[in-house]
Amino acid sequence: MILITNDDGIQSEGIKILYKEIKNKYRCVVVAPDRERSAVSRALTLYRPLRVEKINGDFYSVDGTPTDCVNLAVNSLFKSKIKMVVSGINKGPNMAEDVTYSGTVSAAMEGLLLGIPSIAISCSAKDGFIFETSAKIALKIIDIVLKKGLPNDTLLNINVPNLRFEELKGMKVTRLGKKKYSDTIIEKVDPRGKKYYWLAGEEIGYEPLENTDLEAVYNGYVSITPIHLDLTNYNVIEQLKKDFGAIKFF
Amino acid sequence: MILITNDDGIQSEGIKILYKEIKNKYRCVVVAPDRERSAVSRALTLYRPLRVEKINGDFYSVDGTPTDCVNLAVNSLFKSKIKMVVSGINKGPNMAEDVTYSGTVSAAMEGLLLGIPSIAISCSAKDGFIFETSAKIALKIIDIVLKKGLPNDTLLNINVPNLRFEELKGMKVTRLGKKKYSDTIIEKVDPRGKKYYWLAGEEIGYEPLENTDLEAVYNGYVSITPIHLDLTNYNVIEQLKKDFGAIKFF
Repeated sequence: MILITNDDGIQSEGIKILYKEIKNKYRCVVVAPDRERSAVSRALTLYRPLRVEKINGDFYSVDGTPTDCVNLAVNSLFKSKIKMVVSGINKGPNMAEDVTYSGTVSAAMEGLLLGIPSIAISCSAKDGFIFETSAKIALKIIDIVLKKGLPNDTLLNINVPNLRFEELKGMKVTRLGKKKYSDTIIEKVDPRGKKYYWLAGEEIGYEPLENTDLEAVYNGYVSITPIHLDLTNYNVIEQLKKDFGAIKFF
Repeated sequence: MILITNDDGIQSEGIKILYKEIKNKYRCVVVAPDRERSAVSRALTLYRPLRVEKINGDFYSVDGTPTDCVNLAVNSLFKSKIKMVVSGINKGPNMAEDVTYSGTVSAAMEGLLLGIPSIAISCSAKDGFIFETSAKIALKIIDIVLKKGLPNDTLLNINVPNLRFEELKGMKVTRLGKKKYSDTIIEKVDPRGKKYYWLAGEEIGYEPLENTDLEAVYNGYVSITPIHLDLTNYNVIEQLKKDFGAIKFF
């Protein structure tokens, strides 16, 4: 059985279209937050009980985070084994550094930690989302993952350009890119004479690096990025041993 | 000027002890959340204004996330340039996969994204924190970082055993480890006859991997892990190109 979840909430159009596409071919359930939980942390809800509500048919809502949904669905709610976790379709891209705080990717991370092949899928647009294209891509990738499996400790982060299916240029296996942001902060005074600040920084482009998710999607390709949970920068370990080893700490 | 922040909130003992230690040697300011913001996301607060309150002397509180604090401090609050970001001392360790949702590390990530040498420091205990040891270690590491700089795109995640300074065994440059969790979920019925779930999974040890943060700290060593923001699993890109390239998508 395939588990579908997201961070936009169970009422979102993206998850409904994804469900419709997948259930044509596979048995699946939807377990998703009862409301939008974008940019929530990956932490599990441990300090209070969670409620699960059966909405209808295969749809269940949880008053928790995407991570909670995956944990409950895999460890408690169903008798059938969850053989894959699919998170999405997110309304908006999850690329570059954004992956480190994406709720959509979080859910797939929890699937990965529980030992289940997991993917996250996002539609790269601000509005006018063509979710049908992303759903078709999701199904094709699910077919491959169920057949071939995924490398150890790795989930797939998929971003789909907001195009009709026939307009897509193709697919690329990519690495995470780097965005550029402006640093604008607006400083104003409120009606009671007290100062306030509004962070107004925005994306102003991206670093021109090759083979990145940003480059692929902005050029009309579906981007598939292999993601792991290890943030260690292995390349600098030896240098740091020198820099810090020379100094007597004790 | 050194910026000190955290996710436990400006009232926490850890940040006060860290400030006291650093200001003996360097000019510094504390800009921290007005209350506990552990396990918050790394996202900036964009949908509402932020208030900054000068508490006293060098202490400023912000009604936002650790990431907001760093962004405001670096881009707006002060005329002096911030030459380093120090996040902590967290009450509790930030090791292994926990780093991906740690508020303490988030703040250092924001510093890194803004191009400033950044470190996160945590005291590995559940209670009875000996923050003084961590503060001393922090100052020694700050000395080195200000003198030698840090490798590109890299922050340091430091975890200190909860020992007196003389009891420390030494220091190790490490990679992130892997914890083991139990999957327990408790299913109960509330006084009104409605079912609820309580996630009761807990840490039940760690994978016996060498040179990890967990191994170092549990054996009495200070752990310094170089962290970057790139979650790409480069090792599997070629394999995925084969697995997914063979299939005709279009």
